[in-house]
Amino acid sequence: MGNEIKVPKGFKFYGTHVGIKKKRKDFGLIVADKVCHAAAVFTKNTFCGECIPIGKEHISNAELQAVVVTSGIANVATGKVGRENEYRIMECLANKLQVEKENILPSSTGLIGPQLPIDLIENFLKTESIEMKENYEDFAQAILTTDQQMKVRSLKVGDATLLGIVKGSGMIEPNMATMLAYVLTDAKIAKEAIYPMLKTAVDQSFNTISIDSDTSTSDTVALLASNHYEVDQIAFQTGLNQLCKDLALAVVKDAEGATKTMFVTVKNAVSQEQAKNAGKSIINSPLVKTALFGNDPNWGRIAMALGKTEGLIFDQNKVAVYYGQYPIFSNNNEEKQNISQILAYIEQNEDIYLTVDLHQGTEQFEVIGCDLSYEYVKINSDYSS
Amino acid sequence: MGNEIKVPKGFKFYGTHVGIKKKRKDFGLIVADKVCHAAAVFTKNTFCGECIPIGKEHISNAELQAVVVTSGIANVATGKVGRENEYRIMECLANKLQVEKENILPSSTGLIGPQLPIDLIENFLKTESIEMKENYEDFAQAILTTDQQMKVRSLKVGDATLLGIVKGSGMIEPNMATMLAYVLTDAKIAKEAIYPMLKTAVDQSFNTISIDSDTSTSDTVALLASNHYEVDQIAFQTGLNQLCKDLALAVVKDAEGATKTMFVTVKNAVSQEQAKNAGKSIINSPLVKTALFGNDPNWGRIAMALGKTEGLIFDQNKVAVYYGQYPIFSNNNEEKQNISQILAYIEQNEDIYLTVDLHQGTEQFEVIGCDLSYEYVKINSDYSS
Repeated sequence: MGNEIKVPKGFKFYGTHVGIKKKRKDFGLIVADKVCHAAAVFTKNTFCGECIPIGKEHISNAELQAVVVTSGIANVATGKVGRENEYRIMECLANKLQVEKENILPSSTGLIGPQLPIDLIENFLKTESIEMKENYEDFAQAILTTDQQMKVRSLKVGDATLLGIVKGSGMIEPNMATMLAYVLTDAKIAKEAIYPMLKTAVDQSFNTISIDSDTSTSDTVALLASNHYEVDQIAFQTGLNQLCKDLALAVVKDAEGATKTMFVTVKNAVSQEQAKNAGKSIINSPLVKTALFGNDPNWGRIAMALGKTEGLIFDQNKVAVYYGQYPIFSNNNEEKQNISQILAYIEQNEDIYLTVDLHQGTEQFEVIGCDLSYEYVKINSDYSS
Repeated sequence: MGNEIKVPKGFKFYGTHVGIKKKRKDFGLIVADKVCHAAAVFTKNTFCGECIPIGKEHISNAELQAVVVTSGIANVATGKVGRENEYRIMECLANKLQVEKENILPSSTGLIGPQLPIDLIENFLKTESIEMKENYEDFAQAILTTDQQMKVRSLKVGDATLLGIVKGSGMIEPNMATMLAYVLTDAKIAKEAIYPMLKTAVDQSFNTISIDSDTSTSDTVALLASNHYEVDQIAFQTGLNQLCKDLALAVVKDAEGATKTMFVTVKNAVSQEQAKNAGKSIINSPLVKTALFGNDPNWGRIAMALGKTEGLIFDQNKVAVYYGQYPIFSNNNEEKQNISQILAYIEQNEDIYLTVDLHQGTEQFEVIGCDLSYEYVKINSDYSS
């Protein structure tokens, strides 16, 4: 992946301040020249935002032409009024942009509870002119909330370009989809193929990360294809997987208050699901996360978190635990001779690789998490008040 | 419950420093005059301590005469040597105290991984005299680790006395049993009755609390009855339930770094289990816990945590959320007029009562948790290193 971000053919962007947040950009648009083939996956949270059911309906024919994001308020738990507000925004946009309302995917992110300042937004859309740009930056800025930075990646597959833009740094443990992530491409992707392709990529990327085990109410990953270039479908799937992995990792790297990223591989498990559940139990444990923050090679907490994994049966005599390449526990014995090297490994690296070998099968799975710091507590005890 | 702690007939106590911790007491004993009827419940963590399988075996005939606790090292993930060390301790004690080895319940609490300093302990037990006392305080001190204070409660049921001693302030989300809790009584309790009685009490008390969603590897709740006084069995069960509730609450009150206790009642649920799962999802959410620490009435996070509850289906239009007596969300609407009263309620109280009304059944359940503070991060990022 080069450092220069490439934008696929057929998409334009917009981002501005309409008055949801105090000062920062809070309203973003992606608009395609023509109707795209599209797919999306959404949060599994039952208490979901008003955008989610609308999005599910609008994506059902695998077509989209635009994405609108309001940030600062999530439009969750806002009832009928909240739902109507989304339609009022889409109504304005449909007129203004000459796009079918049913081809707009709406997203909102931010505080749960308050209503959107709909009069401000409507007034803005009715009176101000919207100049769509080739450059994605205003849009990528506009969708952020507690994020520290824009998270944008791109790559090429044959002639086609894939561009991914994601926001999210807290309330993140995707069950099916997570955060707001938009992947745009000018590749030709058939309507029937686009959802399975996205689902495959999301399961290997966004669904392997966890910042704080909390699943957001609004999150959405969408893929829009503007159908300009023929591509090899296998090469495209590989590229899409890679892009989604890069975006997911960018989210963990931007995790609220995090100082370290932990890659946990559970190997020689009976199934990938078993390996994933065990890995998630480890990266979600507050005690594992605080130990990581303290550069503490407290593998006992790894053992504890492994042991509390719902439904996981294993033989503790066979379990081995490694930090990087160094075993810290094997044959039911603490490998004390490695402690000083492991301490140095944890202190000197931002990316910590932990491997748990169950020695009971042949499957493995990697999940990605982060530490739990003072800063996480600060950010999240200060958020709304 | 009076303030004066009463000790049931037939038990003596001991607590001292043998050298597991640097300075503080780290070795405790409870010894009964005669063999007691007894029951115990143990951690569900698969990666359990070496004491747990021994304890299960020794309790299987519903008889115990002594409890030995080593604190500072948990004797978990220590393999054959760890198991043998427990037997070596019990061997010494059996000789010294004239108690059958099979009637001793061993517990260890503290760091996972290291071996017990068995030579130190054995040498102590072989050379020093042990003077058992009527007073429980040395024992209650000896079993502590990160606890801020001793946690001891007692009550009377007819002529009989119930005494409970508990330790624990982190790594706490009991699935079946939790922490180290010893309940002693001089009531007559039949062998067949003692386990069901304990299980009933534990399900209503220790199994309703969570400090950090982590389930310890060593935890044990044991009940020993020295069989001096006839009691009404229903009155005894009521008293036992109350004592276990008081002890569980004492653990939450002593939670690592906690500044507030949150009592979450989920009501009008389809089943108690549904209500409990929803409540646990709320009290275990890092975002709910950090908001509580920040005195932030961020009920949106309550909604999020409710919505992510595995398998919970509900109608968000019918959900209502109350802080204390004040609704903050009902009829899909934020009750803004109550915000200032709710803010005052949260700021001025240490015990916060949160009620979630699902409006879809008749069952309810209360769970108890606490906030997530800087201090929790500090304590747990500093623990072993």
